[in-house]
Amino acid sequence: MAAIGENAHKRDTICIFGTGDFGRSLGMRLLKSGYPVVFGSRDPKNSVLLPSGAQVFSHAEALKTSEIIFLAVHRENYDFIPALSDLLDGKVLVDVSNNLRMNQYPESNAQYLSQLAPKANVVKGFNTVSAWALQSGSLDASSQVFVCGDDNKSKQLVMDVARSIGLTPLDQGSLLAAEELENYPLQLFPMWRLPFAIAAGLTVLFFIYSVVTDVIYPYVKDNKDVSYWLAISVPNRIFPNVSLILLSLVYLPGVIAAFIQLHRGTKYKRFPNWLDRWMLCRKQLGLVALGYAFLHVLYTYILPTRYSVRWRWINSLIQESKENKTMQISQVLSWRVDLYFALGMLAFALYVLLGITSLPSVSNAVNWREFRFVQSKLGYVTLLLCTAHAAVFGWDRFLQSKRYKWGLPPTYMWGMIIPCIVLVLKLILIIPCVDKMITKIRLGWERKLEDKVCGNKSFCI
Amino acid sequence: MAAIGENAHKRDTICIFGTGDFGRSLGMRLLKSGYPVVFGSRDPKNSVLLPSGAQVFSHAEALKTSEIIFLAVHRENYDFIPALSDLLDGKVLVDVSNNLRMNQYPESNAQYLSQLAPKANVVKGFNTVSAWALQSGSLDASSQVFVCGDDNKSKQLVMDVARSIGLTPLDQGSLLAAEELENYPLQLFPMWRLPFAIAAGLTVLFFIYSVVTDVIYPYVKDNKDVSYWLAISVPNRIFPNVSLILLSLVYLPGVIAAFIQLHRGTKYKRFPNWLDRWMLCRKQLGLVALGYAFLHVLYTYILPTRYSVRWRWINSLIQESKENKTMQISQVLSWRVDLYFALGMLAFALYVLLGITSLPSVSNAVNWREFRFVQSKLGYVTLLLCTAHAAVFGWDRFLQSKRYKWGLPPTYMWGMIIPCIVLVLKLILIIPCVDKMITKIRLGWERKLEDKVCGNKSFCI
Amino acid sequence: MAAIGENAHKRDTICIFGTGDFGRSLGMRLLKSGYPVVFGSRDPKNSVLLPSGAQVFSHAEALKTSEIIFLAVHRENYDFIPALSDLLDGKVLVDVSNNLRMNQYPESNAQYLSQLAPKANVVKGFNTVSAWALQSGSLDASSQVFVCGDDNKSKQLVMDVARSIGLTPLDQGSLLAAEELENYPLQLFPMWRLPFAIAAGLTVLFFIYSVVTDVIYPYVKDNKDVSYWLAISVPNRIFPNVSLILLSLVYLPGVIAAFIQLHRGTKYKRFPNWLDRWMLCRKQLGLVALGYAFLHVLYTYILPTRYSVRWRWINSLIQESKENKTMQISQVLSWRVDLYFALGMLAFALYVLLGITSLPSVSNAVNWREFRFVQSKLGYVTLLLCTAHAAVFGWDRFLQSKRYKWGLPPTYMWGMIIPCIVLVLKLILIIPCVDKMITKIRLGWERKLEDKVCGNKSFCI
Repeated sequence: MAAIGENAHKRDTICIFGTGDFGRSLGMRLLKSGYPVVFGSRDPKNSVLLPSGAQVFSHAEALKTSEIIFLAVHRENYDFIPALSDLLDGKVLVDVSNNLRMNQYPESNAQYLSQLAPKANVVKGFNTVSAWALQSGSLDASSQVFVCGDDNKSKQLVMDVARSIGLTPLDQGSLLAAEELENYPLQLFPMWRLPFAIAAGLTVLFFIYSVVTDVIYPYVKDNKDVSYWLAISVPNRIFPNVSLILLSLVYLPGVIAAFIQLHRGTKYKRFPNWLDRWMLCRKQLGLVALGYAFLHVLYTYILPTRYSVRWRWINSLIQESKENKTMQISQVLSWRVDLYFALGMLAFALYVLLGITSLPSVSNAVNWREFRFVQSKLGYVTLLLCTAHAAVFGWDRFLQSKRYKWGLPPTYMWGMIIPCIVLVLKLILIIPCVDKMITKIRLGWERKLEDKVCGNKSFCI
Repeated sequence: MAAIGENAHKRDTICIFGTGDFGRSLGMRLLKSGYPVVFGSRDPKNSVLLPSGAQVFSHAEALKTSEIIFLAVHRENYDFIPALSDLLDGKVLVDVSNNLRMNQYPESNAQYLSQLAPKANVVKGFNTVSAWALQSGSLDASSQVFVCGDDNKSKQLVMDVARSIGLTPLDQGSLLAAEELENYPLQLFPMWRLPFAIAAGLTVLFFIYSVVTDVIYPYVKDNKDVSYWLAISVPNRIFPNVSLILLSLVYLPGVIAAFIQLHRGTKYKRFPNWLDRWMLCRKQLGLVALGYAFLHVLYTYILPTRYSVRWRWINSLIQESKENKTMQISQVLSWRVDLYFALGMLAFALYVLLGITSLPSVSNAVNWREFRFVQSKLGYVTLLLCTAHAAVFGWDRFLQSKRYKWGLPPTYMWGMIIPCIVLVLKLILIIPCVDKMITKIRLGWERKLEDKVCGNKSFCI
Repeated sequence: MAAIGENAHKRDTICIFGTGDFGRSLGMRLLKSGYPVVFGSRDPKNSVLLPSGAQVFSHAEALKTSEIIFLAVHRENYDFIPALSDLLDGKVLVDVSNNLRMNQYPESNAQYLSQLAPKANVVKGFNTVSAWALQSGSLDASSQVFVCGDDNKSKQLVMDVARSIGLTPLDQGSLLAAEELENYPLQLFPMWRLPFAIAAGLTVLFFIYSVVTDVIYPYVKDNKDVSYWLAISVPNRIFPNVSLILLSLVYLPGVIAAFIQLHRGTKYKRFPNWLDRWMLCRKQLGLVALGYAFLHVLYTYILPTRYSVRWRWINSLIQESKENKTMQISQVLSWRVDLYFALGMLAFALYVLLGITSLPSVSNAVNWREFRFVQSKLGYVTLLLCTAHAAVFGWDRFLQSKRYKWGLPPTYMWGMIIPCIVLVLKLILIIPCVDKMITKIRLGWERKLEDKVCGNKSFCI
């Protein structure tokens, strides 16, 4: 501490090149935290809207006042940098720029900058923070600042600045990481692509299948117009089936991985790439599945409020009563309907619980064991309940030939194939002797080379 | 590191004046993290409930043991400080006090303290942390500690202490910020005031309107008592309309801002104050709108379970059947009802998605582009679906003169005015040529002064 | 800063003993942040899957390259450490190990390690971070790292390493805390045990009670088989009652605490242990209550879709119509049904709001006053609405002797006992004179010893 010396009581001046939104917001925030701020501008006299308390000089003059220079200028305008090259010797030059497209240039902006100013210590950072967050953030400052650079001391200085204006810096390594950092703000849900694609594909398939069997078939056969089914009934065939399939796809890769490990007799081999990618998007698959389940619930609960449904229900009972039937309640039907509703509702409640625990702030608050308990144990229970819900809903329909329209089985049967496979495979894996072998392998045991590093005895963690 | 010297292996003693809840909790936490703690008390012999391991001395004696003194005493009791003024020379004095009301005193407590002890380095901080959080927080320590002060070294020392007991310090600048910091824990949802006021106002208006047209009108005209509508039917007229209006108010300011920028031909002019304030509470407006939408869903789905509704529905069909009508299902009605339900349910699902992504932990996990995609693109889709839901619900009612009770149009028409305006304005803004101009302006282009700083070419970020 | 010297531009080498999952993941992360990494292995030549860029040596050789050694080896394999004891002199030895069971050994692994290597500075830490989080975490790094140790400088070094690889270190004090840290990842929802036990007990009680009065009674009395009630109707008797009781148990301890303070006339005495434990799990009790309420809502809204229910509803109206009754709608029934639905739906909406504000990221974003406002004020309103919902649902059933099957009162009456007690006690507490006394006591006033520290005048915070 003593080494910091006399000037410790005053913060070091920070220089910002560029007076756009970001530059000004950053300046404002720095000023608020007690840093003297100097702007470097092409035209110091005409700079407007700068935060009060900041000074404006030409680039060269501004440079001299500070050890850290934030370059808040688009890459296309870096051409004034080489002229300042000597003045930048040993200074920390922070590149905060972003591009308009991913991998727009052969090298990252920060690497390009370090070629233009070879004597400066270039640090990439702050590009993931928005001007808006800098301005408004005083009391809501969870924003993370990713920082990378080749010179550790410079990086440390930049991270200290970030920390003292209330941001959370994260060291991302050398300047090579700048490319990843510059691509990050341009991403649009990369982990959600695959789940959305699968969901969309399944949705289209089930839509066509349901339109054919539920809308076109009665029209062709009985000349009955039920086109209004397109609004609610057809979607409500899609939602539960797609949701169930997506949920089973969350648990399928884990089961496959276990069988691969069993077959190989070791965990010290990488999984095939497709399996790795699949496992990385399980959370997203599960959340899309939850979305479909939520829609299924909304679409099911609206049933008795729909004009066409209540018309059918009430009328059929009136007809029965007119024909002076005995009007006995069917015990079997009561049981069956109540049972599949009960299973469905319990499954949905667990589904929602799984969704809540995958919220970042909730999953951060539980430990690894608790997270696994919820996501794995409760997850399988949910899958089991959902599949049972579908099976009881189906009941004996798979035996009734009239349900096979044009020979096509009812939709729910297609939805149950993968879930049943996953459940059967899981059942095999929890047979005591198989389970014991898997546990042994996961603790580091290997079938072939028992003396290898971290082989028997599970030496390492 | 070497400069820290011999004593680096032991933590510095920390002194706390005041043995109340906060003082004791802070002491306990500091002790747990390895700091020796000394309490200063008016009456050292009679101090009770102090954490074990801490020492208690008189104020003057306690002071001598430490460089950092936490003053955990109410402002009204600062009178013993001036007597210690010389002993406090150069020491770091941390003011953790709060008041009972906002702006209770002309100057902040911390500024008052620095007048009483002019030689001490006063730092404001820790006042936003509760004694409860300090005690229980070991494994749930996301608590932020706001710190401000004129001396940066002192501030840094206090921030280091905060960090090492597991809190996240945030530098808020000079001691001038103390006022804001002291007001912060006394705030009661300041950003929610305006949204709640608007929602309350609209609720009252629609309540009166609906009571007049739905309850009083049938009583006066047909002497029909439907007073029980007050419980569910009338509220369920209020919820959807207020929700829709609030949702449109989320997007209206953005649209207005775009038109202002188009008119001015520059983005380098501040928006009027009312627009700035409006834009800052859009998130809150949206969440209140979601709350109303949630109530609308709850109140709608209960319809067929309500005695009065099912009585009406079933009875009307029994009457029809008695009159030996043909009992044909109405295709148009089936389509219309199913369509507005489908639109409403999809809108609600998107609504919930918008709500989830505005949870702090979720919005922190997405980048700026993703956040904008959800909140802006999906937001407009939600608004469009909601408006369509209302329009299909209304169908041709706006043409039926019997719906105009005492000349008053049905409620849903009032609810659709602002949403339609917003959608039309937005439609204008996404016409290619208008959109191009807006984008140009937002990248820094100006219509009048093309040579100004950050004018053409969008030089700065 | 200058004191850090020449080597500041290069990170210090870090040594990792053990090449298991955790060791390799940690190495990968350290390499990414620019640390040179050296692995120490029993069999350097056969080490597989190590991250590229890392070196592998024997333990003794690896040791010499670094000041910080991470020991990623199971406790059972610490036996090679004593042989390295001299080489470890003054080095920082980080124990990252976990056990399989809580309190498996008499002392913590870290304390055991410090006996094996008495000259090393043992620091416990990183054991709460999973290998998975280390690998995937670059852009999602909210993971907390708990650190404890007797030597503060060593602890600081380890915390610096944690911070620079994007983790948030939290100082947990001396090495004595290692036991707590090692137990933490083995916990399985310790705070949820009591709430779950209470909920499970109540569920069983209400299940038996409801089966006896709702299923067995009609079978015995009228030989009526309503066994299908087991699926939905019986659970839907359990959910609302258990939810209401759990919600009232959230507020009961606060009320009891206030009466204890009133009786004692001071707040400077600890509450009995059972009360402290109860108060610590209020949040969990409330969330379990919300879960039950959610199930109650799901099970209630499904009513009109259930075959047996709509059969009963429609048939009874058909019978009435056949008997040529006047078919008048019952105003009282309309009011009563709508009223208890309205109360229930409002209560549920508030319930959900309470649940949302107890999400970690939301409760972190509000200040203490706002949190108390929602959780206490809104909480009591919710409890009041829920109790009123139950009371209106019950209506005059408690007066109808036919409802007392075998003398047993209807279920809802049992569910209302504790909530009513809590509401009455709370009512007493908000009587102005009682409230004034409580406030006085909570500000530090004491009935007996008005001159004690922090007695009158509420001197301390």
